[in-house]
Amino acid sequence: MVRQETTQVIVVGAGFAGITAARELSKRGVDVVVLEARDRVGGRVWTQKHNGYWVDVGGQWTGPGQDHIRALGDEMGVKSFPTWPDGEHLQYSEGLGLRRHAGAAPDDDAETMGKLVQAIMAFDQLAQDVPLQAPWETPDAQRLDGMTVQTWIDENIDSERAREGMRTAIEAVFAAEPHEVSLLHGLFYAKSGNGFFNLISTEGGAQADRFDGGAGTVAELAAKGLGDAIWLSCPVRTITQDNGSITVSGDDFAVTGKICVVTVPPTLAGRIDYDPAMPPLRDQLTSRSPMGGVIKIHAIYDTPWWRDEGLSGRVVSDVGPIKVIFDNSPPEGTPGMLMGFIEGGDARRYAGVDEGERRKVALDCFVRYFGDRAAKPVDYIEGNWPAEQWSRGGYGAVFPAGTWVTCGQALREPVGRIHWAGTETAEAFVGYIDGAVRSGERVVNEVLEVLE
Amino acid sequence: MVRQETTQVIVVGAGFAGITAARELSKRGVDVVVLEARDRVGGRVWTQKHNGYWVDVGGQWTGPGQDHIRALGDEMGVKSFPTWPDGEHLQYSEGLGLRRHAGAAPDDDAETMGKLVQAIMAFDQLAQDVPLQAPWETPDAQRLDGMTVQTWIDENIDSERAREGMRTAIEAVFAAEPHEVSLLHGLFYAKSGNGFFNLISTEGGAQADRFDGGAGTVAELAAKGLGDAIWLSCPVRTITQDNGSITVSGDDFAVTGKICVVTVPPTLAGRIDYDPAMPPLRDQLTSRSPMGGVIKIHAIYDTPWWRDEGLSGRVVSDVGPIKVIFDNSPPEGTPGMLMGFIEGGDARRYAGVDEGERRKVALDCFVRYFGDRAAKPVDYIEGNWPAEQWSRGGYGAVFPAGTWVTCGQALREPVGRIHWAGTETAEAFVGYIDGAVRSGERVVNEVLEVLE
Repeated sequence: MVRQETTQVIVVGAGFAGITAARELSKRGVDVVVLEARDRVGGRVWTQKHNGYWVDVGGQWTGPGQDHIRALGDEMGVKSFPTWPDGEHLQYSEGLGLRRHAGAAPDDDAETMGKLVQAIMAFDQLAQDVPLQAPWETPDAQRLDGMTVQTWIDENIDSERAREGMRTAIEAVFAAEPHEVSLLHGLFYAKSGNGFFNLISTEGGAQADRFDGGAGTVAELAAKGLGDAIWLSCPVRTITQDNGSITVSGDDFAVTGKICVVTVPPTLAGRIDYDPAMPPLRDQLTSRSPMGGVIKIHAIYDTPWWRDEGLSGRVVSDVGPIKVIFDNSPPEGTPGMLMGFIEGGDARRYAGVDEGERRKVALDCFVRYFGDRAAKPVDYIEGNWPAEQWSRGGYGAVFPAGTWVTCGQALREPVGRIHWAGTETAEAFVGYIDGAVRSGERVVNEVLEVLE
Repeated sequence: MVRQETTQVIVVGAGFAGITAARELSKRGVDVVVLEARDRVGGRVWTQKHNGYWVDVGGQWTGPGQDHIRALGDEMGVKSFPTWPDGEHLQYSEGLGLRRHAGAAPDDDAETMGKLVQAIMAFDQLAQDVPLQAPWETPDAQRLDGMTVQTWIDENIDSERAREGMRTAIEAVFAAEPHEVSLLHGLFYAKSGNGFFNLISTEGGAQADRFDGGAGTVAELAAKGLGDAIWLSCPVRTITQDNGSITVSGDDFAVTGKICVVTVPPTLAGRIDYDPAMPPLRDQLTSRSPMGGVIKIHAIYDTPWWRDEGLSGRVVSDVGPIKVIFDNSPPEGTPGMLMGFIEGGDARRYAGVDEGERRKVALDCFVRYFGDRAAKPVDYIEGNWPAEQWSRGGYGAVFPAGTWVTCGQALREPVGRIHWAGTETAEAFVGYIDGAVRSGERVVNEVLEVLE
């Protein structure tokens, strides 16, 4: 039996963009229905509850400048707390093995770090010219979008160790490797996040703070006010529009309204059947905006015992598949949690293997950095995003060379009654929860203008 | 009402790959059903009949080495004939205007041509190392796939005019611009087509011959033998498989079998709903393999009057949107047909405007090269491939930087009961009709092995 309803605005996706858009429209008296494929809200943010503790298996961080998600968190009464800051960090490299250090890097690495910092400054300098509302209008856009970040690294960094450092940083920021990422996209993304330095920084940077109870709690509380306007387990298959209305349907539902807001990532938006079909530029965009690859792994221990050893729990390594680790324990400190990322090509590769094999490889990494005590966690929890049918990767879309100049202008341009949101469409903090919230706010303005 | 059927092999797509696979399987006594979204066979090959003449609005050419489509043409009794060879060619450039010439280029351009030839030789030399069955295993694959053809041009050609010439050649071969194309993909594609020289050549090259009556005639005749095993106007929406069988369904049909062969381009294959969902690598592949952009325009005149002026009808121009033109008249010479290509970014841009505006811009190009007589054709026929819902571009998929090394190995690897064909999966003449036929033959071997 087909569940049918008529409303004013249909929102596709109950992540932060969709929830924000629906809430703001509701507040203004607009009728909405939110269609969500999953049986939960939050999208790429997902807080799981296990045996008395919570784990953010998806997006989690916020930091200075990310005022829109912070405001929403405040409104929902969810407190934030700093990412665990104390102790010495670990660095692992193929040649030099494991080294402990305070500050940004081991003292021996001063020269490499100098070169890396210089490179990042040059990168951020180059990014200044990108107009965030229209990256395709950057001076020399075709040249910048016609090369990859890898090419830029090869041309601009003259030390192999500094190049390696930059590659690791790119992987951590984009969940993609430098050869997959358009230079123009890299510049756009860095500028949108207040600079590459900000994106790789914890204290005072994009990884500064977390939400107590998990970022998913913010989504759940925000969604509560929408009540049964959110339809879970309703994957959208087709969107049909004409001069009078728009109908969004799935296997067992059909909702008709005036406007539809699609908040899912471009590549997933491209899989919906549209009638009439999407215009060529929009279609090209969705066929060349793949998702980054990330698997987020938590190893959970009774206590954060590494703190007693004077360690912060943070690791940067040039040997994978886990190259970046944080202490991701809750604010009260127990249980202790080490959280590592498998990114880019490693994520795509390991996303498809058995969980048992992935677990073994991941724990081997934890042991490599923290010793045998890491081998036997009391729990092991993973967010395997490339395998998630309704995300197919993360953190967000990563534009390869050519996308921005060939079809970037189709990213936010409405198509008839369809408007676009989602973190990929943000101008600030693209790829972050904050960008998703901002995109939801932006699209509300578009929709209200049309509804008037 | 849902039309239901049980068969052994379900083929998705009745282009040359699908027709070839279905015919070869049928010949061996295997039951097949071919599901085609359009109301015709041929896919990206489409011969239209108008007022007593025929026009190939899609793929049309064959040439030396393309033995598989030639064999099929022979089997169907369709004769081929040479692309019109006689007369002087035209070259148009921003700086120098219109020039007539015999040979490959105007005499003044000897130095530029020398540099261009040298560049193409270097390109073909570099391509020698690409293993066609596994481009991701090319020595230094990550570096080659981590840069665009544009970067290679900038680094390897030291004259602006020769660079411009290479850009025009790349656009003509890929229906895409150098900044959109991975260098590794460019090398793979060139090698698969017997070298870049072959791909840009008419006499003795990839544009050598055409089919009398149109390439679509070959598809139609080949399809005839399959009778009602071909279901037209049946766009596939979902493919569901388990241990025992596979079911392919659309709005009003469902076919169950042992094996499914999907022959549509990767980006369109990615829009089908699969249950279970595609593995991560395959999903990534379909989200980063956009179609090239091409609009193929015929201006039709009572006679090929340019021949009387000593012109071949061929043009190469560095001013768009039509930069390449051929005399595309039928072998008997009447009516006279000039055929021009709008490629890459121009195609994406002009695909979305009104036909009237596109026609005006196109005829302005014909007039720029051939004078006022070109302004009033008796007929104007276009193949607007980016706007075609069941192709969304052409000639074929163009891999941006990063695709081959990140997920190229998923291109031909079967997923459970699903096998992949289509010109994109060929090892020789990828992107050509010949590649499509070859891919159909290859997949038959895979399927027979499984069915045994």
